[in-house]
Amino acid sequence: MPQHPHLVVVGGGFAGLWASRALADAPLRITLVDRRNHHLFQPLLYQVATAGLSAPDIAAPLRHILGKQRNVEVRLGEVTVIDKNTRQLQLGDGSQLGYDMLLLASGATHAYFGHDEWAGDAPGLKTLDDALYLRRKLLLAFERAEAESDPAKRAAWLSFAIVGGGPTGVELAGTLAEIARHTLKNEFRHINPADAKVRLVEAGPRVLSSFPEALSLKARRQLEKLGVEVLTGTPVSHIDGQGFQLGDTHVPARTVVWAAGVAASPLARTLDVPLDRAGRVLVEPDLSVPGHPEIFVGGDLVALTQANGRPVPGVAPAAKQMGKYVAQVISARLAGKPAPAAFRYNDQGNLATIGRMAAIVHVGKLQLSGLLAWWFWLAAHVFFLIGFRNRLVVLLNWAVAYWSYQRSARIILGDADEGDGKEPAG
Amino acid sequence: MPQHPHLVVVGGGFAGLWASRALADAPLRITLVDRRNHHLFQPLLYQVATAGLSAPDIAAPLRHILGKQRNVEVRLGEVTVIDKNTRQLQLGDGSQLGYDMLLLASGATHAYFGHDEWAGDAPGLKTLDDALYLRRKLLLAFERAEAESDPAKRAAWLSFAIVGGGPTGVELAGTLAEIARHTLKNEFRHINPADAKVRLVEAGPRVLSSFPEALSLKARRQLEKLGVEVLTGTPVSHIDGQGFQLGDTHVPARTVVWAAGVAASPLARTLDVPLDRAGRVLVEPDLSVPGHPEIFVGGDLVALTQANGRPVPGVAPAAKQMGKYVAQVISARLAGKPAPAAFRYNDQGNLATIGRMAAIVHVGKLQLSGLLAWWFWLAAHVFFLIGFRNRLVVLLNWAVAYWSYQRSARIILGDADEGDGKEPAG
Repeated sequence: MPQHPHLVVVGGGFAGLWASRALADAPLRITLVDRRNHHLFQPLLYQVATAGLSAPDIAAPLRHILGKQRNVEVRLGEVTVIDKNTRQLQLGDGSQLGYDMLLLASGATHAYFGHDEWAGDAPGLKTLDDALYLRRKLLLAFERAEAESDPAKRAAWLSFAIVGGGPTGVELAGTLAEIARHTLKNEFRHINPADAKVRLVEAGPRVLSSFPEALSLKARRQLEKLGVEVLTGTPVSHIDGQGFQLGDTHVPARTVVWAAGVAASPLARTLDVPLDRAGRVLVEPDLSVPGHPEIFVGGDLVALTQANGRPVPGVAPAAKQMGKYVAQVISARLAGKPAPAAFRYNDQGNLATIGRMAAIVHVGKLQLSGLLAWWFWLAAHVFFLIGFRNRLVVLLNWAVAYWSYQRSARIILGDADEGDGKEPAG
Repeated sequence: MPQHPHLVVVGGGFAGLWASRALADAPLRITLVDRRNHHLFQPLLYQVATAGLSAPDIAAPLRHILGKQRNVEVRLGEVTVIDKNTRQLQLGDGSQLGYDMLLLASGATHAYFGHDEWAGDAPGLKTLDDALYLRRKLLLAFERAEAESDPAKRAAWLSFAIVGGGPTGVELAGTLAEIARHTLKNEFRHINPADAKVRLVEAGPRVLSSFPEALSLKARRQLEKLGVEVLTGTPVSHIDGQGFQLGDTHVPARTVVWAAGVAASPLARTLDVPLDRAGRVLVEPDLSVPGHPEIFVGGDLVALTQANGRPVPGVAPAAKQMGKYVAQVISARLAGKPAPAAFRYNDQGNLATIGRMAAIVHVGKLQLSGLLAWWFWLAAHVFFLIGFRNRLVVLLNWAVAYWSYQRSARIILGDADEGDGKEPAG
């Protein structure tokens, strides 16, 4: 009996995981390779960074999710090179892995638009390690301010800037303002945490630009109500450990967070096929690579323009849909059936949360903002979390946070005297 | 109006925190210094190491616990030297802190009995960072075994040793056996996690030697039932990255955990007063330092023999009682009242858990083992956890674990390819 064909899925994010699950009954051997042992619910990553949730609350072990699916093997490791001619993957530990079909879904990382030197002073938020590092940095800034007697230096420790007015930037800025004004109340003796300045800096004309202008404006007002200063229309031209430059103004800020841009995983470059400016793969309408129907791309790594002329956005629902679509194409091919029609992104709406009880929602003709939108956002996010236990814990955390303003994960890992921890320390 | 006297409390563990809280109404300025920002519920630390709980589940920010107690200031920092003649503390950041009264409660760390070279290959468990490091090491061992094709090397990755048969060693060994046999079931394709060997090595004649012999024997039987091999009566004579030496036998084991001994915080040495062999301070019956009635010692740092000839044990209830007692002594002194009678440890019983639904309990004449003891243990531990939310989340985690055998915190932080992570990475 011939062996089933071997599908390798690179990346256990939404695209890779949804494709693997959709192929549970397919006559395939599937190997899912990820350099992390867990699937991460990225839409709530900012909650880990801001100490509202703990790391395991928003992650689930890939082996556990896929344990009972007998045609899948999970492999912990990092794919470093794809050789599409020999159909071999090179792994970080020196081993090789051959494939008959490949789904490349290794996602995106933050991009500094040619300013990689900012990475050290303006960390981004893509992984759990990033989130724990950011949590430590944010909490330690208040500690440093408390210990500082010089007023100007103290003010710089209490000055926070978030660069990038997309969903992550807005979530971080809103939550940080809430922490300063409410969560930390009464806890310090030499500073008033509510004196903290939280600035959200967006180079474009408005925050949350993927939403209609009216909602975008409402989001800005909600942010301002929470105490965030929103600076739009000017790009940041310099960042270092002391602050950032905005046009002619230097703004002191010991804590700058980067939420301004993403670039495709560098693995895409080793495919040696045409990429767009952000390093994403210009795929065929069936998400395969031009000239290589056995290689598919999914998730944030895809550059695809829809029939309406708009690109498929790099959001979780799009990644899930791509994963399921690739599974359909593969299943049809294995069954000798005609291929399904070209991939079409089914836009189910757009949600963004801003802070305590504030959010905006855009679903079809429905536009919501404020408390109602927040409940909508909460329900959608908790519903889509993988794992029964996660949902319960996250709901419980939110219920407690709702009544008490408390954030239960305010734990600084690593020694406090180890500086601000350039190395992720927990 | 003269300023209130200044009490400095070093360490926010059970002794320091309980003393601070008991002095809420005292005419004192209190500064609580800790190098961590959180109080840690150490009795459940092994659950973080074995992925049953997340770090924030068993920790609470000191600032939050003490935020509303207006006579306390929390300071994040590490005390490095005590100068009892000038009544000054030297901190790690170079600053100084003067005191009128001092409570030294900086706890204990693991001790390798003259074999500090074992520290790298046999990490211990005292802090959250230790627990997260251990979690990563334990989970990665199964990953390495899965990726290894050589049978002997694979067996070494599946060989675990816990050195030290006290409560921590027993908890770790029992839980690890449970993970191998139940939690990881179905999740691997090249190994059977149930093949893992878990050995508990104790130099003395029996495990849990602080319990009556009959209970100690029951604990051993429960461990063996869970699949742990218990080796008593021979001390480990060598440990390296490949295994350990027990008498004439070399046992291959890529993962060795140290739970064999503790030594007092090195800060005690800077007091320049008589210490016992473990570096603990030989205190007066009122827990003060000989010749220095303004300096008290609490918790694991105390060496004190009770009237019955037995030492006060290094356990959480003893630390809490010492903290409260020191608060009484200080309050009496401030009020000009006679000092309370000498400190007496009120032994409320002794509990140890062994694994899933197995524990032993010794309270007065009551001796329990098995499931009933486990419920007793669970109730006591959840009841004593600080913070409403912690209790709910921990109970919820246990309820889910009870029904599903799942351990929700099985998240490996840090890149998988970064080796076994000598640096705490999460």
